[in-house]
Amino acid sequence: MIKPQILKGFRDFLPIDAIKRQKVIETIKKVFELFGFDPLETPALEYADVLLGKYGEEADKLLYLFEDRGGRKVGLRYDQTVPAARIVAQYSDIPKPFKRYQIQPVWRAENPQKGRYREFLQCDIDIFGTSSLLADSEIIACVLTVAKELGFKNAKMLINDRSVFTNLKSKFITAIDKLEKIGNENVVKELITKGMSDQDAKKLVNSFNDKKPTSHILTVFNYLKTFGLEEFKDFQFKANLARGLDYYTSTIFELVLPDYQAGSVGGGGRYDNLIGQFTGNNCPAVGFAFGFDRIMEVMDQLGLSTPQSTNTKILVTIFSSEYINQSIALTLKLRNANINTELYFDPNDKLDKQLKYADKKGILFVAILGPDEVAKNKITLKNLKERSQKPFSLDELDTLLAQST
Amino acid sequence: MIKPQILKGFRDFLPIDAIKRQKVIETIKKVFELFGFDPLETPALEYADVLLGKYGEEADKLLYLFEDRGGRKVGLRYDQTVPAARIVAQYSDIPKPFKRYQIQPVWRAENPQKGRYREFLQCDIDIFGTSSLLADSEIIACVLTVAKELGFKNAKMLINDRSVFTNLKSKFITAIDKLEKIGNENVVKELITKGMSDQDAKKLVNSFNDKKPTSHILTVFNYLKTFGLEEFKDFQFKANLARGLDYYTSTIFELVLPDYQAGSVGGGGRYDNLIGQFTGNNCPAVGFAFGFDRIMEVMDQLGLSTPQSTNTKILVTIFSSEYINQSIALTLKLRNANINTELYFDPNDKLDKQLKYADKKGILFVAILGPDEVAKNKITLKNLKERSQKPFSLDELDTLLAQST
Repeated sequence: MIKPQILKGFRDFLPIDAIKRQKVIETIKKVFELFGFDPLETPALEYADVLLGKYGEEADKLLYLFEDRGGRKVGLRYDQTVPAARIVAQYSDIPKPFKRYQIQPVWRAENPQKGRYREFLQCDIDIFGTSSLLADSEIIACVLTVAKELGFKNAKMLINDRSVFTNLKSKFITAIDKLEKIGNENVVKELITKGMSDQDAKKLVNSFNDKKPTSHILTVFNYLKTFGLEEFKDFQFKANLARGLDYYTSTIFELVLPDYQAGSVGGGGRYDNLIGQFTGNNCPAVGFAFGFDRIMEVMDQLGLSTPQSTNTKILVTIFSSEYINQSIALTLKLRNANINTELYFDPNDKLDKQLKYADKKGILFVAILGPDEVAKNKITLKNLKERSQKPFSLDELDTLLAQST
Repeated sequence: MIKPQILKGFRDFLPIDAIKRQKVIETIKKVFELFGFDPLETPALEYADVLLGKYGEEADKLLYLFEDRGGRKVGLRYDQTVPAARIVAQYSDIPKPFKRYQIQPVWRAENPQKGRYREFLQCDIDIFGTSSLLADSEIIACVLTVAKELGFKNAKMLINDRSVFTNLKSKFITAIDKLEKIGNENVVKELITKGMSDQDAKKLVNSFNDKKPTSHILTVFNYLKTFGLEEFKDFQFKANLARGLDYYTSTIFELVLPDYQAGSVGGGGRYDNLIGQFTGNNCPAVGFAFGFDRIMEVMDQLGLSTPQSTNTKILVTIFSSEYINQSIALTLKLRNANINTELYFDPNDKLDKQLKYADKKGILFVAILGPDEVAKNKITLKNLKERSQKPFSLDELDTLLAQST
């Protein structure tokens, strides 16, 4: 026998979770399309050298790499930005600016811990082929609209210009990013541990006390205001915001929810040199990735998601083997009326067992068709929540269920 | 520089394909839910021993297996039946019968050739926890409803009882499956090559000339008729239908489209012993998997799919940098009216270039807001298909676009 078990850091989504996730994905897709983004899909596996060296050393260690049966070095998708950049480089005839969204799982060999998984869904939007800062602003506006549609009233985008870190090594940038989290003194300590001189470390940390936004960022801010967004409420400058990934070049941003402890629910920025790593010709690009699992976690915390264990509206019971055909006929009729209907399978099970099954599964309505009902050409409809039951004609039933959909 | 290339047997889906695929998935999901199936998702990676030995020797060779960074032997999902069976074994408190659908990619190290991919989407429905042949019938009825909804008028389910092959080795079963394809004589030859005696091979092949459906199959047929399905039109007995996978135990079926040369677009059957390989206690199960790529291929061949290169309805142009704010305001207004709207990004591009971009991208409407329009408080709306253009007030525009959605 083989133990039925799942790998650490991976998850099964039973219907109650899968239904919840699908609904949130629908909302996100709707907003992405409203902003003129079209769907794109890339393979789970890429040549390893497409992925390596794009994210930074730390990230490369988290890649799922292996040799396939043909001896090719391949890797599982680590994010959706690099594969999309590969596509933009490969299909040069895609009309630009190219606005695409992508909602697919990514894989990272992270140390599994609360809220950190080895397989998780990302929801990305990116705009390829324009340096216009209107594009940066559209990305930010679209993300904030998604956040509002999901019910996050206080969502705020923190914004910075990654180019202010250009001369700083990434190990130092990572430390600076933690100023609020661990405080000035600890950042100075970390910088020194990582090899910076005492004096330089202090100077660097102090420089973040009075940093002003670059003119690049001020232009983005002006556009954002034209988009109807408010500074400090919807977006805000954050001098030490750095973002982890190596490929960013100028605008960077991070979506935060004040009610959510665990930090950001997504981030992005401009990465004007990534596509050049494939083609030699740079192609400007800007984008954002939602961490879908973070979104689900906050929605649960803030009571914004309503658990629903099934999409099925009604269970048609079977009174006994003589009444199978009547129950099938009712099932067909309900489905023809576009009502999600389950037919009970075992005519030998007592009605009580059938009702318990509907209740356990979370199906609200149960239809009963026994000798009494058939004689009167009626159906008994039970509402398991209100614990009520009433006889209905078939036509009445259609109307009732259609209304409550 | 790194060559931007994709692995053989894998595919990118640019918007024109991704949009088409999403629409078909929506239809399939709708029917699955109408029949009372709820969504389930499993991880891309499983422990190798969860996957190995379930499908048969040939299939095991096609598994993507590798060692992860923790030295665990893992494998990519080969189908959705075995992971779902693993779930049913692992979460014993799932109410049964458990009806789930699953629409996720699977990976097989096949020899890539026309219509055969190494990553492809499967759309599965399965019912776990009941031996009732009503369940087999529901699966078949649901699949035929999907086929009809997709426009396949002549879809037919071929049905057989796998138990008639119980005493036959799988290598012989595979040969029998090919009777129509290669003819009696060639099957006899293949059986002999594979080690059967001349006499036995001839006897076996001849036995399929007058095989009758088992009583098990006749019961399913009776239910199917009650479900409103017609024998020979919607479903039909096929004595030598075998299906490739080892886990099937009795009812097996295959969906064929007479207009489609390449054979079946999906198959399934009853596999009452698979879950027992995990738990020791058997749990009956029956299901079906659509090969999604086959479906897309036939839809294209039969002209059932309409290519659509974008979901975006309208492009708002920018006349010049002085008019950016007006264009942004119009964009916001259209999006508030739930119209998928793209804002052009470069105010320095000539109007002609902006129109060509919309045309190339397949956006039907273009809004122009220049000095004339602003002075008259109007918008010029161009329909790029009809090559017409008219002035509209903002309110008129909303109404017009909403109607044409």
